[in-house]
Amino acid sequence: LPEPLNEFERIARLVAGLPRGEGVIVGPGDDAAVLRPRDGRDLVVTTDTFVEGRHFRRDVFSTEEAGARLAAANLSDLAAMAALPRWALVALVAPHAWDAADVERFHRSLATTLAADGVAIVGGNLSSGDGPFTATVTLLGEVGRDAAWTRAGAREGDVLAVTGHPGSAAAFLSLALWGNPPSRDRVPPALAARIVAPPSRVAFARALAGERLVRAAVDVSDGLSADLAHLCAASGVGARLEASELPADEPLRAAARTLSAAVGQERGPLPAGEGELLTYLQIGPGDDYELLLALDPAGWDRAAAVARELDVPLSRIGTFLSGQRLEIAARTGEIRPLHPHGWDHFAS
Amino acid sequence: LPEPLNEFERIARLVAGLPRGEGVIVGPGDDAAVLRPRDGRDLVVTTDTFVEGRHFRRDVFSTEEAGARLAAANLSDLAAMAALPRWALVALVAPHAWDAADVERFHRSLATTLAADGVAIVGGNLSSGDGPFTATVTLLGEVGRDAAWTRAGAREGDVLAVTGHPGSAAAFLSLALWGNPPSRDRVPPALAARIVAPPSRVAFARALAGERLVRAAVDVSDGLSADLAHLCAASGVGARLEASELPADEPLRAAARTLSAAVGQERGPLPAGEGELLTYLQIGPGDDYELLLALDPAGWDRAAAVARELDVPLSRIGTFLSGQRLEIAARTGEIRPLHPHGWDHFAS
Repeated sequence: LPEPLNEFERIARLVAGLPRGEGVIVGPGDDAAVLRPRDGRDLVVTTDTFVEGRHFRRDVFSTEEAGARLAAANLSDLAAMAALPRWALVALVAPHAWDAADVERFHRSLATTLAADGVAIVGGNLSSGDGPFTATVTLLGEVGRDAAWTRAGAREGDVLAVTGHPGSAAAFLSLALWGNPPSRDRVPPALAARIVAPPSRVAFARALAGERLVRAAVDVSDGLSADLAHLCAASGVGARLEASELPADEPLRAAARTLSAAVGQERGPLPAGEGELLTYLQIGPGDDYELLLALDPAGWDRAAAVARELDVPLSRIGTFLSGQRLEIAARTGEIRPLHPHGWDHFAS
Repeated sequence: LPEPLNEFERIARLVAGLPRGEGVIVGPGDDAAVLRPRDGRDLVVTTDTFVEGRHFRRDVFSTEEAGARLAAANLSDLAAMAALPRWALVALVAPHAWDAADVERFHRSLATTLAADGVAIVGGNLSSGDGPFTATVTLLGEVGRDAAWTRAGAREGDVLAVTGHPGSAAAFLSLALWGNPPSRDRVPPALAARIVAPPSRVAFARALAGERLVRAAVDVSDGLSADLAHLCAASGVGARLEASELPADEPLRAAARTLSAAVGQERGPLPAGEGELLTYLQIGPGDDYELLLALDPAGWDRAAAVARELDVPLSRIGTFLSGQRLEIAARTGEIRPLHPHGWDHFAS
């Protein structure tokens, strides 16, 4: 057996071969990294942690897929601010159950996914620990001065729009975890593909930012209704969601059908009716890493055109209201209060 | 019993009452923070993780002290780059064994220690996890363009200098952990004080940076000989350390005497002779968060004057050599090879 690598050798190996990145004056290996932001820009920074068993299970996700999803979670936060991602720091706590190859696969996949959006890893930290594998990424990006999107700014009458097919992450997990042992065999491949490697919305956000049509944005990482509630609270407005306008393509519908049949046989936490179950998946807890936007209504056509140019699904799913009421127009046409029930990492 | 707080409420409570900080355009609570660096500066970023049981033990450190030490570890990295610390992001993974009050005490102490050097916490993440408490801080600072100190740049003939009293951290831990159960009762209070709340070297580094006397710097976080080896490797030089010049004040000498007596009674990993044991503490594994500097020899007097003005202990402890040989002049005058044996978090 090879000698265990020490911390310095491991960090050196993890970052070897990574592109150095533009604006990196001092890269990994010193006490800190030195970076050169462009003058006249604002800096946008976010941090996100994945804990094994909590944010990913190794019987459902490979180490590569978990790394890609952590990168996607951070990139999604910067997309929601219309920022250009540039640099990242990565802190890993690896248990003895993870060998060096596991850690390297996770890190390489994380680095590759970040690099696809132009991000260089400029520093990091590697510790051992007795608990679950834990990875924290801090992502830094740039945006024009005062040009960052925030959650505040939505106005009554604005169009509520969303990218992608929210509900896919919840459908994936529900299907994979329905049986014992968990298995991805029940998940339509087209649905699995968008979960194990969530598409980046960075390019779309950057293109849309140039058009100045977006009044507020949030990324869908807790679940559509919960994140909508965050945005409404920050903006001081309400919203009506149209259930019939929520985008569901064939992979998501197929997942809802399979789940509905399974739910029909066993009692579980999910509603049994196919339509109700689909809506539950779409607006309930789920980390889809999609963008929820408040758009100037006069700009909807232009936003839709930008989305088509970049091959990003964009759906108009509701309207912002005055006051702070949140409601959903069900497929039956009935208007009901919308209760945010996003994923809460700590209380659940 | 109160209801458990959800993640949003906990983060909101943790950051409530923290100073917002200069240059913070969007603080905690959005998808990311928006910051405004000063034009024409370089950005300096570092990340450091503390894992309970590995970087601190709760039978030796209180949660407040652990938080202060994590802040100190990050501040020390920026001091070693001559950077002005400005903003931080904090990611916590809390096990059920830590109640909300523990987490808040840790966070408040971390925030207070960072704030003393002008740092605002601008974002964070809070997860639960089944393993040990884990905290990752990413610290961002600024420095004049191309003015950051690095580990590279030491030249033959440069003065090797160090702040504070390296060895204090190793002495503290050795004394506290010598008995069973561990106890700080054996540690001289003056020694404990500098470990549970390590003095910041940021102001000293910033003052010294204005004098342009420092050719290379590293912070002593792995141990003096290990960090000296890192600096020498990066600079392509060697160094001779003078054991008799290593600074040992009365609290550190008292600790060495107590330990020497204890070692004399029991067999353990430490050398028994008082002088040898003192040197071992001073140059061996230990996270003192002090600065190790390569100084232009013509500037030593000025550097010493800056240190006196700021009440920072600064000692001239050796000389940089050509080649890459590392050696130590023992108290006997004998020249021996110096083997770096810093603390390796992963291999040990």
